[in-house]
Amino acid sequence: MGITELSSTDRVRAVTWADDALVLLDQRALPERERYLEIRDSDQAAEAIRQMVVRGAPAIGITAAYAAVLGARQALGGVDDNWRARLSAALDRLGDARPTAVNLAWAIGRVRQRLRELEAADAEAALLQLARDIHAADVAANHRMGELGAALLEPATGILTHCNTGSLATGGYGTALGVVRSGYRSGRVSGVYADETRPWLQGSRLTAWELVQDGIPVTLVAEGAAPWLMHSGRVGWVITGADRIAANGDCANKIGTYALAIAARYHGLRFMVVAPTSTIDLGAAAGSAIPIEERPAEEVLTLAGHRVAALGADAWNPAFDITPAELVDAIVTERGVASPVTAATLARVAGV
Amino acid sequence: MGITELSSTDRVRAVTWADDALVLLDQRALPERERYLEIRDSDQAAEAIRQMVVRGAPAIGITAAYAAVLGARQALGGVDDNWRARLSAALDRLGDARPTAVNLAWAIGRVRQRLRELEAADAEAALLQLARDIHAADVAANHRMGELGAALLEPATGILTHCNTGSLATGGYGTALGVVRSGYRSGRVSGVYADETRPWLQGSRLTAWELVQDGIPVTLVAEGAAPWLMHSGRVGWVITGADRIAANGDCANKIGTYALAIAARYHGLRFMVVAPTSTIDLGAAAGSAIPIEERPAEEVLTLAGHRVAALGADAWNPAFDITPAELVDAIVTERGVASPVTAATLARVAGV
Repeated sequence: MGITELSSTDRVRAVTWADDALVLLDQRALPERERYLEIRDSDQAAEAIRQMVVRGAPAIGITAAYAAVLGARQALGGVDDNWRARLSAALDRLGDARPTAVNLAWAIGRVRQRLRELEAADAEAALLQLARDIHAADVAANHRMGELGAALLEPATGILTHCNTGSLATGGYGTALGVVRSGYRSGRVSGVYADETRPWLQGSRLTAWELVQDGIPVTLVAEGAAPWLMHSGRVGWVITGADRIAANGDCANKIGTYALAIAARYHGLRFMVVAPTSTIDLGAAAGSAIPIEERPAEEVLTLAGHRVAALGADAWNPAFDITPAELVDAIVTERGVASPVTAATLARVAGV
Repeated sequence: MGITELSSTDRVRAVTWADDALVLLDQRALPERERYLEIRDSDQAAEAIRQMVVRGAPAIGITAAYAAVLGARQALGGVDDNWRARLSAALDRLGDARPTAVNLAWAIGRVRQRLRELEAADAEAALLQLARDIHAADVAANHRMGELGAALLEPATGILTHCNTGSLATGGYGTALGVVRSGYRSGRVSGVYADETRPWLQGSRLTAWELVQDGIPVTLVAEGAAPWLMHSGRVGWVITGADRIAANGDCANKIGTYALAIAARYHGLRFMVVAPTSTIDLGAAAGSAIPIEERPAEEVLTLAGHRVAALGADAWNPAFDITPAELVDAIVTERGVASPVTAATLARVAGV
């Protein structure tokens, strides 16, 4: 990889560039198989995002940046000189792959901005450098957020997290799991409880796998057990990532996050969201402006490919929910911490 | 069955007595297979309760009552006349099968009380009559609770429920699902949302199956989606059963119930517990006195027999949680409704 030196608590990378191709760790196959897919077509990259080969807001942004390199190569190989239009259409298709995470649109916006300055001869190399820069900046941001977030914790704090916000969800190190990694090393994190995160089981399949790789103890709980875990006194903070943060601090994140925030408030526990500033969408005044992806009912009606629900039953499967700013105690970004969470504190860290 | 006439919205029975044997619908195999197990040994019945062939607080009480008939038959077939001691030991083993639901202890207490009046010659027949009476009374109680609970609902109310509290969990008709059945017929229930109820998936496998059998529309949600469902305005009441209710109104029920109660209160929705008075344990002053069963981590780490979590990850798997009385708007019993839920209103319906 070479992007940053991997330490003993940071061994996993989900998105890489090797041999002129985008290489994705197929997260659908984890933890059973560690399988890598080599992708040389930008539409295949869009399909991989849609199919959740790669997931996690920062990781799909980085994937899109590398996919733009593939798109440029394909567009430049055309029979006419209309490569900008072909690449722009490919970027549109990438941007449509998943609607909720704003990092995807943010990365594609960076690509489009850069493209304005580029000629055909240097487009592919320049876009690859941009993708590498976006990737490296994400890893650096995660290390910074890890330190800032861990500094908010008392020593030996039990953490509850949701979904996967680690190296698998980002360029590396992770957002909420970056805080866990930094805090575990410094003794501020005593242990991690992870929601299994139905229906896709990112907690059981990905977070547990990633933490086991790095030697950080992890205990899974069903989502329904999380408030009873809080009642037991085993956790002090809930820490999650975000897929999009509105200007007022409302946070879109994996379905089930809102449930944890409500229960944390009921128990007097604190709730931290860890996300790079590329996750902040100042164009969305409040959470109600954020589109929520609804995924197929089959994800709930089946488990590991087997139907579990009775035939004739339906399911409602929103992939994300919105946690209102009032339930979030701190939003940690690479540019600083917004706490309390208000439009003003968030604007300050967003740099506007 | 003959216990009560089955209507078009009440077709399912989990526990029956036929050909001098206890017959259990194997709920581990649903919805894939409708398989019935014939049981002629009280220890096999205890094992069936432990293994969750039959589950649901009222249903395991009824199962224990029928199992006592088997135990009596086995004890009376012994070489000496020490049948009472042998039966008493068998009843102890039945009572130890699962710790949280009080209906099991309640049914065994009824058997022991009856035994004091019995001679060897009439023991088996008398205990069978007792089991049939307990079973019939449970079904009658469920019909009564169905009417009382449905009367609390506005017309066309959306319901969210948890676990399985229906015919499969009771002698027939159900507790919370009894309210759904009565309310659906009278137009007070517009539709049912059901938590899938990890880790055992009672919602997906059992509640959905049972409601589909009876033609009542059901939409499954992952537990993590339940608060977002509440936010959407689709549900007006959360209705669940209980495995044990303390004297102060604290309710032990399937893990995840507490989460719904907290979220319902946050959204200003109402929360109803439906349980026969045999569920009330006046010997437990508060929920903290109720033993909470912890089941094997493997139930969380696996799905349908396949390991899903990374090797090296642990899980915490409490089977129940306690919802404090303050979060419960009404406890519906066959003897009336306690609302608001206080020690005084509960004592009134418990008849003390």
